[in-house]
Amino acid sequence: MVDTFSYDTLYSEKSIDDPLKPAAHATYDFAVAYPAPETLPMDGLIQALQVAVDSDSEKVLAEMAYYPQQLGALELREYTCAKLAADRGFTVTPEEVALTNGSGEALGLVIQALTNPGDVVLAEEFVYMGTTAQLRRFGADIRGIAMDKGGIIPEALDDQIVALTAAGEKPKYLYTIPEHQNPVGSTLSTERRKAILKIAHKHGMPILEDDCYVDLRYKGEMQPAFRALDDSGIVVYVASYSKLLAPGLRMGYFTASPELMRRALSFKIGSGPNQFAAVAIEGFLKNNLDSHRDNFTPMLEAKCASMLASLEKHFGDSGATWSTPEGGCYVWLTMPESSDIASIRDEVFQQGVGYVAGTNFEADASGRIGSNCARLCFAFESVEKNAEGIALLAQLFKRHGQM
Amino acid sequence: MVDTFSYDTLYSEKSIDDPLKPAAHATYDFAVAYPAPETLPMDGLIQALQVAVDSDSEKVLAEMAYYPQQLGALELREYTCAKLAADRGFTVTPEEVALTNGSGEALGLVIQALTNPGDVVLAEEFVYMGTTAQLRRFGADIRGIAMDKGGIIPEALDDQIVALTAAGEKPKYLYTIPEHQNPVGSTLSTERRKAILKIAHKHGMPILEDDCYVDLRYKGEMQPAFRALDDSGIVVYVASYSKLLAPGLRMGYFTASPELMRRALSFKIGSGPNQFAAVAIEGFLKNNLDSHRDNFTPMLEAKCASMLASLEKHFGDSGATWSTPEGGCYVWLTMPESSDIASIRDEVFQQGVGYVAGTNFEADASGRIGSNCARLCFAFESVEKNAEGIALLAQLFKRHGQM
Repeated sequence: MVDTFSYDTLYSEKSIDDPLKPAAHATYDFAVAYPAPETLPMDGLIQALQVAVDSDSEKVLAEMAYYPQQLGALELREYTCAKLAADRGFTVTPEEVALTNGSGEALGLVIQALTNPGDVVLAEEFVYMGTTAQLRRFGADIRGIAMDKGGIIPEALDDQIVALTAAGEKPKYLYTIPEHQNPVGSTLSTERRKAILKIAHKHGMPILEDDCYVDLRYKGEMQPAFRALDDSGIVVYVASYSKLLAPGLRMGYFTASPELMRRALSFKIGSGPNQFAAVAIEGFLKNNLDSHRDNFTPMLEAKCASMLASLEKHFGDSGATWSTPEGGCYVWLTMPESSDIASIRDEVFQQGVGYVAGTNFEADASGRIGSNCARLCFAFESVEKNAEGIALLAQLFKRHGQM
Repeated sequence: MVDTFSYDTLYSEKSIDDPLKPAAHATYDFAVAYPAPETLPMDGLIQALQVAVDSDSEKVLAEMAYYPQQLGALELREYTCAKLAADRGFTVTPEEVALTNGSGEALGLVIQALTNPGDVVLAEEFVYMGTTAQLRRFGADIRGIAMDKGGIIPEALDDQIVALTAAGEKPKYLYTIPEHQNPVGSTLSTERRKAILKIAHKHGMPILEDDCYVDLRYKGEMQPAFRALDDSGIVVYVASYSKLLAPGLRMGYFTASPELMRRALSFKIGSGPNQFAAVAIEGFLKNNLDSHRDNFTPMLEAKCASMLASLEKHFGDSGATWSTPEGGCYVWLTMPESSDIASIRDEVFQQGVGYVAGTNFEADASGRIGSNCARLCFAFESVEKNAEGIALLAQLFKRHGQM
C-alpha cells in the first residue's frame, strides 16, 4: 500500500532504541554466567515431567490449562519453602513466596516497587550489571560501597549513609549479593551481616538480598542469609533455580513483607511464571537435590582449580592478583592499575577469549575503578579449556601491551 | 531485632497495593480462557524434549546453559516464521520475531513502546480485559469502537478518529482481535480489514493485531491477517502458543518494524523467554501440528454445540441472545437490557457457575454497556458439563430475578 510506515512521532518518551545484544560466544567463553552445562540434569527434568503426568495426568493438565496465578505453581512454592528452611535457615509460607521468570524479574519487580526516579540506592562498588541496568532503567542513582576481600565494609557503609543523608540524599535501600558475590566472589561473614543489619535498622533502609549463588559452594562455610538473621521484613530475599539447574528454565523467586510483595507483583507484565518448567523443577529437586549437588560441586572445584593454576603459571609474574573463590562461578582478576583491559575486550574476544571487563560492574558507572579488572567465569568451560584459555589470555594481553 | 519494619515512606509512587487474585474455580468453570485440557499434548511435549536431548544433547545443554537472547530460542523463531507463512500468509525472518512470556508480555512491551500517559488508544467496545488492564497501567485513555456481528464497523472507526482528532485527542493506535474476538467471538471479513487498513494509513495510526485465537477455528473461513494484507510496518502482529498448546507453557511472540521491536524489547525485565518450553514446543509442533489440530478442533466444535443447545433449551424464551462462534473459546451471552448479571456474578460463582461479566470487557470501563452480558467459555469443561452448567445458570439467573 505505502512503502514504509513511519513511527517517528509515535514512540513513547520512555522507550529506548537499544540495539539487540548479539549472541556471539568466544572460543574460550569466560564471559558467561553459568555453571557446568555437562551437569545440567535434562534427562532428570524430563523424567520428572513424565512422572508427574503418569501419576496424576488430570492434575497436571488442569495446572497447564489454567493461566498461572501471580505467585506461580503451588507445589514449587511449597518445595521452595522447604528448601529455604533446610538450606537457608528461615521459615516462610508458600503464600509468602512468588515465583518469577528468573531472579531478574524478581529484582525488577522489587526495584519498581521501591524506586522513584532520582532515589539513591546503594550496592557493592563492583556488582552484577543486570541489576544495575534495571536500577538505572527505573531511575535509581546508584552509589558503590567500599569492599575488601570479605565484601562490604560495614563501617564504610555506615559512613556513606550518614554522609549521603547529611547531603539530602538518604539512600532508599541496599542491594547486595552476600554469598559468592558477582563479580568479585566475596562472602560476607555472619558478623558483617549482623553489623550491616544493625546499620540498616538504624537508618530505616531495607536490604535487597540476592542469594542466587548460594547453591554453588564447594568449600568453606555457608553463612546464614540476611533473611535468616532478621525476621522484621527489612530484608527482601531473592534467589533462583538458574544456577542450581539451568538459566534456560527461567525460574527465580522472592519473598518480602506482604504489602511489598503485592506492590511488586502489581508491576508484572502478562501472567505468572512457566508451569511446565515448574513441574519439572519441583519433580526433579524433591528427589535429587543432594545427588545433583554432589555431582556438580566437585566439578566446579576442579574447574576453578584449573583456572587458578593456569593464572599462577601465566600471570604469576605480571603483578596481577586474583580471587580464590570457595564457590560460585567467577574468578576476579585485577591487573596492575596502569593497565586497561576494558578497552581491548572486543579484540581479545575476537581472538578467542571472552571476559567481562570490570567497568561493566561499577555500581556508579564512573569508569574509575574497573578498567584493570575482569570477571572470568571458571564454571562453564571444561577443566582443559580453562587452562588453555588462560594461557591464551596471557598471550593476548601481552600482544596488546597490557602485560 | 525489631518487631516489624515499616515500608510506609519507601514504596514508589507508581506502586499499587493490588490484592492478589484468588485461584478459585467454579464447579462449572465458564470463566476461564482455555481450550480442551484433555487435548493438551503433555506426552508429546515431553517426548519432544527427550528427542531433542537424545539427538543432540550438547546443543540442548548449551542452549539451556546460556541465558536466553532477547528474541528467544532460534529454532522456535524459525518454526514460527514457517507457521506464519503457511497459516497466516506473510513472510518474516527469525530476526523479526521475538518470543515472549505469553502474548501478554508481547502486548505489554509494545504498549510501553507506543504509549505516553494520557494517550488515546482505540479498541473494540468489548475487548480482552488483560490488554485493557495493561493499557491503563501505562496511562492509556481507551475508547471503544462500535461493533456489530462482523466486528469493528469501519465507518464508525473513521468517524470516531475524525471526531477525536478534531477534539485534540488524536488516537495513537488501534488494538484489535480480528479472529474469534475475545469476548464476542466476531471475525473481521477481509473487506473490513482492508477498509480498516485504509483508515489506519489515512490517519497514520498503527494497528496492534492480537491473533491469539487463530488456531481455534472449526468451521467457516479463516481470514487473512492484517499483517498479511499490509507490509508497510503499520501492523504490529502478536500471537501465542497458549491457546494452541497450553497457557502454562507461557509462550507468545510478536513481530513489528525493526526499531519498534528494539524499543519494545528495551522494556523487558530480566532475560529472554523459557528455553525449556521452547524446545518442547518446537519439537512437538514441527511433527504434530496438523494431527494436534485435527484432534482438538472437533472437540471444540462438539463442546460449543453442547453449550449452544443448552442455551436454546434453557434461555430460548428469556429474551436473551447469544453468539454462534466458528472457533475460539467463547459464547457471548446478551440478556435483555434491563437485567444485571454483573452484580450477581460472585453469588452465581459460589453457587456453581463461573462466567466473566460483560462489564469487565468494556474498553472505556464506563459500566454502561456490559452489565447484561457475559462471556461463557465453552472450551474448557466437558460436553456434558457445558450442558449441565448452562441449565444451572438459567436456574440461578431465575433465582436472582434476572430471568
